Amino acid sequence: MISSRNEVTEMIVAAKVAKGIKWADVAARVGLSKEWTTAACLGQMTLDEKQASVIGEIFELPDDALRWLQAVPYKGSLPTAVPTDPLIYRWYEIVNVYGSTIKELIHEEFGDGIMSAIDFSMDIEREQDPKGDRVRVVLSGKFLPYKTY
Amino acid sequence: MISSRNEVTEMIVAAKVAKGIKWADVAARVGLSKEWTTAACLGQMTLDEKQASVIGEIFELPDDALRWLQAVPYKGSLPTAVPTDPLIYRWYEIVNVYGSTIKELIHEEFGDGIMSAIDFSMDIEREQDPKGDRVRVVLSGKFLPYKTY
Amino acid sequence: MISSRNEVTEMIVAAKVAKGIKWADVAARVGLSKEWTTAACLGQMTLDEKQASVIGEIFELPDDALRWLQAVPYKGSLPTAVPTDPLIYRWYEIVNVYGSTIKELIHEEFGDGIMSAIDFSMDIEREQDPKGDRVRVVLSGKFLPYKTY
Amino acid sequence: MISSRNEVTEMIVAAKVAKGIKWADVAARVGLSKEWTTAACLGQMTLDEKQASVIGEIFELPDDALRWLQAVPYKGSLPTAVPTDPLIYRWYEIVNVYGSTIKELIHEEFGDGIMSAIDFSMDIEREQDPKGDRVRVVLSGKFLPYKTY
Amino acid sequence: MISSRNEVTEMIVAAKVAKGIKWADVAARVGLSKEWTTAACLGQMTLDEKQASVIGEIFELPDDALRWLQAVPYKGSLPTAVPTDPLIYRWYEIVNVYGSTIKELIHEEFGDGIMSAIDFSMDIEREQDPKGDRVRVVLSGKFLPYKTY
Amino acid sequence: MISSRNEVTEMIVAAKVAKGIKWADVAARVGLSKEWTTAACLGQMTLDEKQASVIGEIFELPDDALRWLQAVPYKGSLPTAVPTDPLIYRWYEIVNVYGSTIKELIHEEFGDGIMSAIDFSMDIEREQDPKGDRVRVVLSGKFLPYKTY
Amino acid sequence: MISSRNEVTEMIVAAKVAKGIKWADVAARVGLSKEWTTAACLGQMTLDEKQASVIGEIFELPDDALRWLQAVPYKGSLPTAVPTDPLIYRWYEIVNVYGSTIKELIHEEFGDGIMSAIDFSMDIEREQDPKGDRVRVVLSGKFLPYKTY
Amino acid sequence: MISSRNEVTEMIVAAKVAKGIKWADVAARVGLSKEWTTAACLGQMTLDEKQASVIGEIFELPDDALRWLQAVPYKGSLPTAVPTDPLIYRWYEIVNVYGSTIKELIHEEFGDGIMSAIDFSMDIEREQDPKGDRVRVVLSGKFLPYKTY
Amino acid sequence: MISSRNEVTEMIVAAKVAKGIKWADVAARVGLSKEWTTAACLGQMTLDEKQASVIGEIFELPDDALRWLQAVPYKGSLPTAVPTDPLIYRWYEIVNVYGSTIKELIHEEFGDGIMSAIDFSMDIEREQDPKGDRVRVVLSGKFLPYKTY
Amino acid sequence: MISSRNEVTEMIVAAKVAKGIKWADVAARVGLSKEWTTAACLGQMTLDEKQASVIGEIFELPDDALRWLQAVPYKGSLPTAVPTDPLIYRWYEIVNVYGSTIKELIHEEFGDGIMSAIDFSMDIEREQDPKGDRVRVVLSGKFLPYKTY
Repeated sequence: MISSRNEVTEMIVAAKVAKGIKWADVAARVGLSKEWTTAACLGQMTLDEKQASVIGEIFELPDDALRWLQAVPYKGSLPTAVPTDPLIYRWYEIVNVYGSTIKELIHEEFGDGIMSAIDFSMDIEREQDPKGDRVRVVLSGKFLPYKTY
Repeated sequence: MISSRNEVTEMIVAAKVAKGIKWADVAARVGLSKEWTTAACLGQMTLDEKQASVIGEIFELPDDALRWLQAVPYKGSLPTAVPTDPLIYRWYEIVNVYGSTIKELIHEEFGDGIMSAIDFSMDIEREQDPKGDRVRVVLSGKFLPYKTY
Repeated sequence: MISSRNEVTEMIVAAKVAKGIKWADVAARVGLSKEWTTAACLGQMTLDEKQASVIGEIFELPDDALRWLQAVPYKGSLPTAVPTDPLIYRWYEIVNVYGSTIKELIHEEFGDGIMSAIDFSMDIEREQDPKGDRVRVVLSGKFLPYKTY
Repeated sequence: MISSRNEVTEMIVAAKVAKGIKWADVAARVGLSKEWTTAACLGQMTLDEKQASVIGEIFELPDDALRWLQAVPYKGSLPTAVPTDPLIYRWYEIVNVYGSTIKELIHEEFGDGIMSAIDFSMDIEREQDPKGDRVRVVLSGKFLPYKTY
Repeated sequence: MISSRNEVTEMIVAAKVAKGIKWADVAARVGLSKEWTTAACLGQMTLDEKQASVIGEIFELPDDALRWLQAVPYKGSLPTAVPTDPLIYRWYEIVNVYGSTIKELIHEEFGDGIMSAIDFSMDIEREQDPKGDRVRVVLSGKFLPYKTY
Repeated sequence: MISSRNEVTEMIVAAKVAKGIKWADVAARVGLSKEWTTAACLGQMTLDEKQASVIGEIFELPDDALRWLQAVPYKGSLPTAVPTDPLIYRWYEIVNVYGSTIKELIHEEFGDGIMSAIDFSMDIEREQDPKGDRVRVVLSGKFLPYKTY
Repeated sequence: MISSRNEVTEMIVAAKVAKGIKWADVAARVGLSKEWTTAACLGQMTLDEKQASVIGEIFELPDDALRWLQAVPYKGSLPTAVPTDPLIYRWYEIVNVYGSTIKELIHEEFGDGIMSAIDFSMDIEREQDPKGDRVRVVLSGKFLPYKTY
Repeated sequence: MISSRNEVTEMIVAAKVAKGIKWADVAARVGLSKEWTTAACLGQMTLDEKQASVIGEIFELPDDALRWLQAVPYKGSLPTAVPTDPLIYRWYEIVNVYGSTIKELIHEEFGDGIMSAIDFSMDIEREQDPKGDRVRVVLSGKFLPYKTY
Repeated sequence: MISSRNEVTEMIVAAKVAKGIKWADVAARVGLSKEWTTAACLGQMTLDEKQASVIGEIFELPDDALRWLQAVPYKGSLPTAVPTDPLIYRWYEIVNVYGSTIKELIHEEFGDGIMSAIDFSMDIEREQDPKGDRVRVVLSGKFLPYKTY
Repeated sequence: MISSRNEVTEMIVAAKVAKGIKWADVAARVGLSKEWTTAACLGQMTLDEKQASVIGEIFELPDDALRWLQAVPYKGSLPTAVPTDPLIYRWYEIVNVYGSTIKELIHEEFGDGIMSAIDFSMDIEREQDPKGDRVRVVLSGKFLPYKTY
């Protein structure tokens, strides 16, 4: 019996490498964005029955695994509080260097509140550039104001 | 004599609150984006002489402060490794929840390497939405490949 | 010139102790709940001009301080990641011991998502009990579902 | 031979996902609140013999497991001091942002002491709301005063 | 104006060293145990008006300080999570080495619950011993059982 | 082959739960206090050959395990620097809140030095009390003075 | 099925020790520097198909492992934030003692920006010296300037 | 009276920014490398009387400061264990990503031992490159073998 | 009024640097070893009245300071848990690399117990050596056995 | 196949306990000090072929293990940065309490530099003492001066 979502994530990742599957193709078959689909496969999102069954087919998962994909996972995909992987660290660095700037500008535009990380979407794409291609990421999160009561 | 960039940042922040200055107006006078300008005022970027003198006028800074604005600062704008402020934490959460997803998708598109946080720009704006306005953030960073040698 | 909201919080706390002011009375004059008002006075919420001026009068704050009360603060009211104060630790302990329970039950009722800490209110009151009075706290937060995209 | 309560918790969680059991149904069969029952199943509370045997039947646990359910566990349900899961983090954030407020208001009402996390109960329910349903949580803990001696 | 209880604690400690006052004498004048009185002087307990005025006289504190002694303090008397001072470390070591033993034996005698650190008293005294005198400490805390609900 | 004392501790704990053994009975058979015996069984003390053989019989341990019980263990019984278990945390809290008090009073009575945690004994017992029974703990440690040289 | 790059790294390291293979020989067969090749074998770099197949032959790896060598790894080769191994610690010490010096001198020469750790190469060699041979390391990283926008 | 080397470092840094002094010029006047000289000015090295007097003249330091420059400092130039500044972080990343590689290659060439960070020198210079200039750093440290005894 | 021993330590260190005093000379005048005397001056030991008055004369301390020298200090002389200073780090490294060896050998010779750090003395001296002088340190601590009870 | 030195250390420790081997006897057969030999067996030193084969015979290790004993290990023998074992903690305490003293006295005698932990030896022995035997430890490390360049 499978006893955690992590085991399912490991099965998916192992199958992906062994079979040379692409996330973009998985997303196409699930019918959702590659960002959400990848996050779900990596144990961060909850799938419905149909999505789980597509994922199960692609990665040849056992039935138990499909039920885990439909259970809400304990989220958090990084092994340390400050990430060691250079690609992911650069994002942490952006939060560290630009954090107070982001805070000031969102508050200047919207007042006190936050940009939701739940009612949120992300889009990652290649931006052609003669000086070297760029990664272009669009983040969109609902603004949620603090209210008085 | 001023002995650190932090002192200059505190002067700017104190003057901003006391005078009710807006970052967008500061940026307009400096002639650069509000994102870069705010980061610079908050001690994360280095200004040239002319930029420093505009900032000095707006916030009524002493001459010493202008020289500090032109010295490269020790960067990092957050007081703790895991931020406590809810707005900034949501960004840290995005890195934590989506970190492995971002890593997978950038590598799938570009191969091994990173998205630069140096050759980088950010644009924060309001996205009108009938269900509640959204914060839309566009991040653009050059892709830098790891090379063999 | 005041250079941080912390200085204003210290002024308020010092005046409160020196004058023997009660939070409930402050809240009554501000016209909001004692929970929100106290949080605002302790540097966690943003006041509007009128609220700030009432607070200013009560605690005899300088004009500069009133402007700081209207600026969005860097939030977080505890000096360490694991609180040392016994009263506050008990709350941290509740999150630690019951955290996975809370998660399971909210997900069982609502599916994947979170209980908002922004669109949120709190009410603390005394519950008479012959075996010793109890503290009764009601927390109400909007449920925000994760969505697919 | 089972050598820790954690193993029993894993068995319960694995069976729950595999069989699609609901905590509310488990609680109904045990005859206690869903909050206490879930906490007990997740390794935070001690069951008596009869409760353990009901749990054992529902999740088809071996005899050894029943004895572990009756041993007092080493409590604490979160893998890191600052939780990474967004739902649980929001609770940690409430303690962080409102911690000093909670402390002030309980002391204003009761004097020095704490709100017990042992002589404590919790009730989590859905609050219908046209603007989006809310999670309503009631916490009730005995006030324990510090005494002089 | 005094802005924190810490300042009062520093005043008391400075006066104690400067005047050569003994905690036992302070306790005798306050009319309570030396353990509680010392903890109160070191910023861990709340005094009533009369106690505060006795302390104020002994240490020649300003009026403001007396009001701080009557406000509930943010507790915690050690600068680091693991104490560096050898005497205090030995106590931390006792918790570390004997922690699981204490837990097992209290549960064996009382069932699930805790020994209160609030409804608690401590008595420290010299135990004459020909092989070298000993420190004898008696801790007494009410047992608080976890209950089902 | 057993490769650590931890494995022996796990065997003992598993056997204790499976067989419903009581620490007090183990201590009676070993002929020592229940505090020392429990600590030894939990991997914190070193047994002599005869004690090890009694423990081995009670918990039905293999021969290898008996030799491990006679090897000096790497001590420390808690999984984190700040304990998460509520019962053990209360002890950590006592060190945190009363640490400076304990230090002051021992120094006032004995001068500079420590209370030994090695030449040390502990006695835990129930104290009948009409308002609710109490846990009474007596700690006795030799005072070791710092000397000049 | 192999479920992480770590498993492949362990296979390579185990084979290296068992067979007495030298990194310099591996590099010669791969046709790249010994620095890059060693980093790749230790799980820090991504190989192309041909490189992976050479590595696979040398260390007699299964087919699955070859596919893992071509997947981008989660980088970071040290088990703790501050390394305990004396050789690696000396490097951490260099960063700690000379960090601000390195920062000052690169900024004095190049202005604000960083020395890339991605477009980067390293060369380690023996420097003969009558007073004792020296390790000579040449690091070369592209300078990446911060730009305004 | 100056009570720490840090105060002297702050004086030097403040004077450097205020007067626009260059480290290369300071080094030229001291007659040593710019790397050693900068490290010394930033509080990491000990100067002799003559060097201290040159530094004192350049930065117009008081006499007390000259004596501090000749006292061995408590070394370590970074405010956090994992540096937040992007330039310095890249060096930490090199240690993290290449740490095990560096260890393997030095041991392969020299056997067990370390590369000294004391009998050590560093040289930082610009490397012209049509694709963008590079930072070239040469580190040279004596190899110190572990010996048997 | 002086409010902590740290202030006295700073006075002593500042005077030492300003006047060029040597620890060995201080020790000679106090009439004790240079190790104990230096530790006492650096805030780790408690002096008696006569010793304090000698120290006061040498460093020209105010009367208040003499009383602080006679109060038992909160010990611990390092600013971080893992020291950054290379000389002190080497000692930490010895504990880290040889810690388990020291433990094994002391237990092999003495059985279970510790080497006291209280009934302890240290002697540091130069050992002439044609290959480069050595630091020779002799540590002597009473062995304290764990006892059964 | 053995995949880490840790596995070999565990084999040695398990065999030592099972067979009742003494470190002093192992050292005698290897022909080196008991300190170096124990450190080597515990995974901190590198053996040559002959030493490895003696160790292999004594502990009946497989051939693979002998090769691991000849590979340079990743050093560090403690599971946490601040050790929990009382015997090892006392050593950490010595570094913490006496660290600044050791630093001052070595610098007073030798100038700026360090005492090597590599060109280093240690000798642990029993010191007969009527008041209780003592552990006497002699540490000898080459002094390595910082040099200018």
